[in-house]
Formats: sequence, C-alpha cells, structure tokens
Amino acid sequence: MEKKIINVMPFACIMTVTIILFTANLFVNGDQEWKPSWSSKAAEEAEAVAAIPCSGHGRAYLDGLVLQGHLPVCECHPCYGGSDCSEFLSDCVANAGSGDPLFLEPFWKQHAASSAVLVSGWHRMSYIYSDGSYISELLVKHIIKVHDIVGNAKTDGKYVIFGAGSTQLMNAAVYALSPNSSSNPAKVVATAPHYAAYKTQTEFFNSRDYRYEGDTSLWKNKTDGSTRFIEFVTSPNNPDGKLTSAVLQGSNVKSIYDYTYFWPHFTAIPAPADEDLMLFTISKLTGHAGTRFGWAIIKDADVYERMLTYLTVNTIGVSRDAQLRALKLLNVVVEGEGREIFEFGYTTMRDRWIRLKNVLSKSKRFSLQKLSSQYCSFFQRTRDPSTAYAWLKCEREEDKDCYTVLRAAGINGHPGSNYSADDRYMRLSLIRSKDDFEILINKLKTLVAQS
Amino acid sequence: MEKKIINVMPFACIMTVTIILFTANLFVNGDQEWKPSWSSKAAEEAEAVAAIPCSGHGRAYLDGLVLQGHLPVCECHPCYGGSDCSEFLSDCVANAGSGDPLFLEPFWKQHAASSAVLVSGWHRMSYIYSDGSYISELLVKHIIKVHDIVGNAKTDGKYVIFGAGSTQLMNAAVYALSPNSSSNPAKVVATAPHYAAYKTQTEFFNSRDYRYEGDTSLWKNKTDGSTRFIEFVTSPNNPDGKLTSAVLQGSNVKSIYDYTYFWPHFTAIPAPADEDLMLFTISKLTGHAGTRFGWAIIKDADVYERMLTYLTVNTIGVSRDAQLRALKLLNVVVEGEGREIFEFGYTTMRDRWIRLKNVLSKSKRFSLQKLSSQYCSFFQRTRDPSTAYAWLKCEREEDKDCYTVLRAAGINGHPGSNYSADDRYMRLSLIRSKDDFEILINKLKTLVAQS
Repeated sequence: MEKKIINVMPFACIMTVTIILFTANLFVNGDQEWKPSWSSKAAEEAEAVAAIPCSGHGRAYLDGLVLQGHLPVCECHPCYGGSDCSEFLSDCVANAGSGDPLFLEPFWKQHAASSAVLVSGWHRMSYIYSDGSYISELLVKHIIKVHDIVGNAKTDGKYVIFGAGSTQLMNAAVYALSPNSSSNPAKVVATAPHYAAYKTQTEFFNSRDYRYEGDTSLWKNKTDGSTRFIEFVTSPNNPDGKLTSAVLQGSNVKSIYDYTYFWPHFTAIPAPADEDLMLFTISKLTGHAGTRFGWAIIKDADVYERMLTYLTVNTIGVSRDAQLRALKLLNVVVEGEGREIFEFGYTTMRDRWIRLKNVLSKSKRFSLQKLSSQYCSFFQRTRDPSTAYAWLKCEREEDKDCYTVLRAAGINGHPGSNYSADDRYMRLSLIRSKDDFEILINKLKTLVAQS
Repeated sequence: MEKKIINVMPFACIMTVTIILFTANLFVNGDQEWKPSWSSKAAEEAEAVAAIPCSGHGRAYLDGLVLQGHLPVCECHPCYGGSDCSEFLSDCVANAGSGDPLFLEPFWKQHAASSAVLVSGWHRMSYIYSDGSYISELLVKHIIKVHDIVGNAKTDGKYVIFGAGSTQLMNAAVYALSPNSSSNPAKVVATAPHYAAYKTQTEFFNSRDYRYEGDTSLWKNKTDGSTRFIEFVTSPNNPDGKLTSAVLQGSNVKSIYDYTYFWPHFTAIPAPADEDLMLFTISKLTGHAGTRFGWAIIKDADVYERMLTYLTVNTIGVSRDAQLRALKLLNVVVEGEGREIFEFGYTTMRDRWIRLKNVLSKSKRFSLQKLSSQYCSFFQRTRDPSTAYAWLKCEREEDKDCYTVLRAAGINGHPGSNYSADDRYMRLSLIRSKDDFEILINKLKTLVAQS
C-alpha cells in the first residue's frame, strides 16, 4: 500500500464531483432531456419515503420497519407518538443526553438534490481503491479542501487516514503512540472534565502496551524520559466548550488532539491547529453520526503507518459506502465554501445558547459555564458563544447530585461523574433535534419557576 | 439498549423493502407516470458513470479520481491499462493473491435496478435506530430469512449482531469468550492450514485477557478446567475448502466458527450449522468486501452482551450506510429465494475449478487439494466442488518454496507460511474477476508446458 502523503497541488484543479459528473453526463446524453433507466426504481423509492410527513415530528427511512399495511413506519422524535407522530406525550422526559447531532438535519433537507447519492449494486465491491489502499484519495482531497476553507487545521505535508468515527481512531492513536512494551506500558491521561470514552475505551482494550492512568493533574512535573505519556486533549472541550491545550510537557509526552468540535458551528476558530496528531469526525461537522466516519491528520510517518496497520487489522479500513457518503456531503460543504452550513450551524447553536442562558438567568439554583465572544478567522468577525453542550452546575449546597435534580424535573442529561468531574455538574446536549431542544427549554422553564 | 433476540414471527408478514416502497409510492403518486424531483441529479450522475465502458476491463466509479478533462478515470483491472483500459500489459503478473470476491460483480450488473439504493442527505444521521440500538432490525430479519432459504445456519432463539466484516467480529468474539483474567489469559488456537488473521489479529491487540498459543495439535488432550481455550474453526476452510469442525474438547473450550465460505457458491451445504458462535460476512455472500459488513449469530446472552459492548466501544456499531446497502443486496438475494445468485456463484466457481484442474492435470510438478462431489441440501442434488481457493502443492523435492516457483512464472499467490503451513504449499485465489482468472489460467498453462 502506498503512503498517502497530502498532495499540495491546488485543489482548484480537481473539479468537484458534481461538476465532473454533470459534464460526463452531458457527454453521454447530449442535450436531450434525461430519463432515468435502471436508477428509476431506487429514486422513486427514496422520494416516496421522503414524502411521508410524520407530522414534522418524526421521519420515515428506506430501512425503517414496516406496518403490515405495507407503509414504512414513522420513527417519532422523543416525546412524540402515534402512527404519524402527531401525538405529544406530555408526561415524557426531555432528552438532553447523547450528542446526537440532529440540529443539522434541516440543513440537509434543504439541500436534498445536491446531497443525494445513488449507489449502484456493483459500486466498490473490492477491498481496495485503485491505488491499492483502503482510503479514497478523492475524499482525502475534499477533507483537505474543507480544512483550507475553514482554516481550522494545517494539513501541508501531513498524512490523512480514516476511521469509523473518531471513536475507532482514538484507540488506533493510543496504540500508535505506545512503545509496545509490556514492562513499561504507556500512561494514558486526560484532564477532567473530559469525554468519558478516553478512559473507558483505553481500559476496555486492556492492552499490555498501555494503561489508563487518570487525570493529568496527577502527573504534572512527574513526567520523565523513561515512560511514554499519551495525553488526550479535546478542544473545544466536551463537555464545557472551552478551547484547551495539552497540560503535560516533556520529551516523552505525546498528545492526541481531539478536534471533534473545532468547527464554526460550536466555536470561534482563532487560528489553524497544527498539532502532530489531530482527530476529526463528520458526526459533528455535517451531523452524520450514523455514517461512522472520522479522520486523523498525522505529522509523523511512523505514527501514520502504525495507525494504518491498526485500521487494517481491526476492520480492513472504513466502509467504502461510508466514504462515498462522506464525499458527497463534504462536496456540498465545499461547493458553498462552507458559508451555508456553518452559518446554519452557528446561528442555530447561538440561538439555542441565548435561549438557554435567558431561562437560567432567572435562577440562582443553576449556573452555566462562562463563554465569551471571540474573533473567528472563518467568519472574519467576532462571534457569540454557540457551544454544543451546557455544563450545568447545581449551586445549592444540598443539590450534590445535579443529574438527579434535573431527572426529577423530567430532564435527562449526563451526570458530571461521566466526565470524571463532580456530580454537582451535569451535561445537557444542545445539538439534538429542534423538538428535543424545545422540550428541554420548556422543562427548564418549569423547573426554574418552581425553584 | 434492548436485547435483540431473533424474532420467530414468520418472515412472510414482513414485506420486502421493494414491495413496501413501491406500494408507498403508489399511495403518494397515484397512477401517474413518475418523474424524479430532488433525486434526479443523483440518479443521472450514477447512470452517467455506469455508462463509461472502460473496454470491459475496468470500471468508473462515482468516487473515482477525475481527469482534468472532467471525466471520471477508468480504474483498470490488473494487467490492463490506458485511459479506457483497452491495453493489455503482457508482461504483468497474474493476481491470484487476495480474496477479493469480484467474481460476483457481473451478477450485480445484471440486477442493476433491484440492487440500486438512493441515499438521501438526511438518511439516518442519528447514532441510533428507533429501538435505541445500533443494529437495523429489518436487516436482522433479512439475514435470518437468507439463512432460512439457504439452510446453512439455525437462528431460532439466537442473537444477531453486526461488525465491520467478520474481521471486527473475530476479535470481538475472542474478547467476549475470554475470562478477563490477566493472571490466566485465554489461549487462542487454530488448526493449520488456517486464515492468517486469527493469529495476527490476536497477537496485534496484545490484550492481558488472551494470548495466541499456536496450533490446536499442541493442545490436544491437554485442555483442563482451569484455562479457557478459544478455538477458531473455519468451515469450509480457508485456504483448502474442506468442511471442518473443532479439534479441542472440554468444558473450558469455546469455539468461534468462521462460516465466511459456508454458502452454495463454494461448498455443498450438508445441513444447517448450529454452533454457539458463528461468523458470516457479506463479502463472500454477495461479493461486497468493500462494504465491510458481517454478522455473528450467538447462542449465549452473556457472550452477545459482551460482543455488543466491544462493538460499541470500538466503533459505536457498524456504519448505517453499510447496513442500508447490505439490506438492499440481501433483499435481492431473498427475492429470488437465493436461486439466482447461488446458481450464478456456483456455476462460475465450479467452471473455474474444472478449468484449473484440467490445466494442472497435465503436470506432475503441481497438485491440488482433493475435493469431492457432495449432496447439497440447498440445491437438493449432488454438486461438484467449487472452492474459493486452490491450495497448490509443489511436488518436486527442490521446490520447497512454491510461492517463489509460481512468482517466477508470473503468478502472484500467497505462500503456505501465511497459513501456518509448509511453504511447499501456496494459495491461489479463484474468486477474483474474470480477467484475473483468465490471466492466471494462461500463465499456468505456460508454466505447465515448460515444466
């Protein structure tokens, strides 16, 4: 397999898939009005399913379960029910738990034509792309183009590899940075509050090569040349949305920068990141968590090779169907130079943050993390906070378990201890569907009014 | 997440996606001739790419690289070149290496309309399906239906989970069957000749919970109640195509049955398998290796839960795009009650085996594994051998390295040592494209004539 070093040739000379294919099509069909042939049935199926309204409180999918009456079943948003999702279930719990990025779903419905893909039955059956790798070269070029447009990461002279979301890449990176020594395994650390999976995943795989060793605060000024430290850094941080950087220093300290949320939806972009190992995922860029597609940008050739081996041994790379989907979605991002999707994402998230702050400003029982306006090099202006998650604190002495306080008020979030933090804190997800956010706001209003 | 025990409700009451959606569509559009709306561009792109002929010795793909003249690049089969793949590169090496299952590609071109899928931009953005899981319930039902039709596995009362090919499921199974004990790790074993990844993958992850401990022959009558043994069994076997069963016995021995090749393309189906842990993959059923989709059928609830945890921690399940693709492909298999695809696969592979045997029958320098005709419960008749791989032996005393002998004759296979076997053996892949097989046969004819 060939090394896939980033091609620094200007992207301009690579035409977007859309333009290319349109041209190719004209070449084949001339100027006549085009009529579908073998693709007609698939197109018709997709449009028929999309036309099922589910009252605006649910969706029907091509692969949804079906009623005996043969219609696809509407899959209702939380707190909605009935065969067409028109019933509001008033006694239900607000879902502010998982970071399901459904806030971007309306964007894709608005861009139906440009984001659809028709996959033929014989598309990419092989294990390999034409260069013998498991990685689509065209998709790598699109990813680089997206980073160039957004200005959130330097990619020149670096390597790009793919994983099933950043999830798979996290452990691949830990493996690649570990010294393969059971007598002196690498110490994996992170700074609380932090995303739970760094700890749970590292412990789960229980390798002889590395061990999870808790918070960076335990190891400050205690790193030495003999033990490899691997620090997970999330910026902006999950759960609290703050821009962060590595805590540990030293010749034997390596960092994995998780830039999942480093997009204009959620944060100002002060400058492009230029770290040795950076993780990104489509989940929080386009909102397609279900596609399971992420990528790592890697400076060092050895680390790249080791991660590539991990991906091969673990799953023989990432589904070529997921790669095709990601290509089409990123092509839409690239076509509009990112303006459309990031304006949509930022506006949505900023408005949600403002509304949440307003509701909680009426209460001394709860407080939110402090976030300030900041200059964004992408928008070329100062922008307001628009964080993915609220990091809520219960301020009353007796409210030691903030999760339970909110759960009693019909709101489901994640307890602070999930993030190796005090349970006086909890995380509320703000990136879910509009329905979920509205129910959350209503429940919070009631709670604040009663407090 | 809910347990996903197999629903024993007759499949007949679950209509196939095609019928359903066609009905739904009629419901929406009445009897008028249907015209595509937002799906038109995607359909047009796919048909334009499919219409690029590449001289029959290559393919153009939606996500292929593009020429500056804006046409997608033809990706040529091995030994073909030129912009339209019309040039035969006569000095090139026959590719009989990897098990890329491209022999089924023509089947899917013949079934273009029924196997195409149009994926909307907002299809399954969420992490979860409507039941809160990462596993499509409709796809589970299709898989069970395929096994019912083929009669190659008993699924009643068992659990089904998905992985990125059987590759990811192999290590998930090893994890799930290991006792989580670093003081007494499970011993993972297999019987040579065997698929290399059992060893390489188990060693690669270097877990404190298990260790690769070589061939089953080292442990026969040496298993006891205190150490967990995990035996990989492949049936029919890769590389030699023989039906096999577990070698080790004992209360603490668990087997992982890899049934990747247990389909009528490659073997007679004597009776349905009914093992505790069985692995399958779409790669060798429909030929879609690139989709990275496999499944495990599991008897024990605890093992199922542990594998589910592994899949969650490793990748948060399998790409929903891969699951949609698999659904559509299996729907085509199910629609024809499996007759069409298995007749196609069996006929193709049997003819290749006959041709290979005929060529080698003229030589005493090489021999093939012995395979005999056998009654197949699926075809309800005795069928000839149609194995996926030739397990070639170099018979001359001096030909100790069979791989090198064939490499010198312009044929690339896999050396016997890749399968923990003697290098007097080597594997030739017979499941690749027609072009690859024809070149292999021609090179073998020349070699035999010279020997």
